[in-house]
Amino acid sequence: MNADALLDRLIEALRCLPGVGPKSARRIAFHLLERDRAGGIHLAEVLAESMVRIKRCSRCRTLTEREVCALCTNPERDDGLLCIVEQPSDILAIEQATDYRGRYFVLGGRLSPLDGVGPEELGLDLLARRLHDEPIAELILAISPTVEGSATAHFIGERAAAQGIRVTRLAQGVPLGTELEYLDGGTLALAFSTRCTL
Amino acid sequence: MNADALLDRLIEALRCLPGVGPKSARRIAFHLLERDRAGGIHLAEVLAESMVRIKRCSRCRTLTEREVCALCTNPERDDGLLCIVEQPSDILAIEQATDYRGRYFVLGGRLSPLDGVGPEELGLDLLARRLHDEPIAELILAISPTVEGSATAHFIGERAAAQGIRVTRLAQGVPLGTELEYLDGGTLALAFSTRCTL
Repeated sequence: MNADALLDRLIEALRCLPGVGPKSARRIAFHLLERDRAGGIHLAEVLAESMVRIKRCSRCRTLTEREVCALCTNPERDDGLLCIVEQPSDILAIEQATDYRGRYFVLGGRLSPLDGVGPEELGLDLLARRLHDEPIAELILAISPTVEGSATAHFIGERAAAQGIRVTRLAQGVPLGTELEYLDGGTLALAFSTRCTL
Repeated sequence: MNADALLDRLIEALRCLPGVGPKSARRIAFHLLERDRAGGIHLAEVLAESMVRIKRCSRCRTLTEREVCALCTNPERDDGLLCIVEQPSDILAIEQATDYRGRYFVLGGRLSPLDGVGPEELGLDLLARRLHDEPIAELILAISPTVEGSATAHFIGERAAAQGIRVTRLAQGVPLGTELEYLDGGTLALAFSTRCTL
């Protein structure tokens, strides 16, 4: 066994990275020490600064180092469209894949009363204020169609609809490029029953 | 696109990790920011300290924060055995898999004149001094049996043998658990020609 405390501590600390076990941690440590010290030092600096300075946007709850994030302050985005997502990473995915030009709101999870995740934890009071105060014409629910996700979307959608806001959700069906043979039965049944005219 | 500079800088900095592309870097950044800030802060501290303080051992050239590493100073190791490895990680692998109790020497690469890696870069002058000054009875060449590795092992072995030191190398043949069907022809031919009596 290697008895040098600092190298062992580095390997152990690297295991906080997702999907990194003992072997990967060792490989990463040796890579940085032998081939990329400058990269390691730079990473340490940016990581330390990020962990302390990046907070939630006070308007949309995404991760940002500012009080209000760049998407919320961008004057070119459409205030009439609000897209609800679960995670900040969903915003990046939608921004890269679509030409959506409205605003976002990040829940940070799904309603799950048994795990102690209720409307407050998802910022639904903040969302309610925005729906009340802002000229929102369409609320787009871009929430994963899992059991908890659908319940969360239903909960939010009902309240927005009660205020006369148009509520939409992402289309559900067969993903592009998928072989029907390998598609789960639930999705196939749904896509079959909601088939549309060509 | 996300215009928050610090988050983008974090994602970019994470790409110095081996095998981490843009998508993995984003996933790691969000994981640390949303689920493990304490782990991220700890990693940043240990990483910064490691990149600056971990150097090469002055005796065996492995990575260590001390002038001489724990394996070289351990009085219970056998000074009569010296095992030559390419990388510090090879030491960990041998320590975990075998009951070897001798000393090590780390080359840090293989002889490769075209890439500017000669005897000096591998610390062979330091190794020659140790072979001369110390009571080494057996030199074990635990170097990968690639073309450059074999040339390196041959170069070191010749010099040590000339000083009357017993030189050994790892056995070569079929790895345990391997199907012969999938083994490369070179290894199969070698194992066949060096077959031994049961």
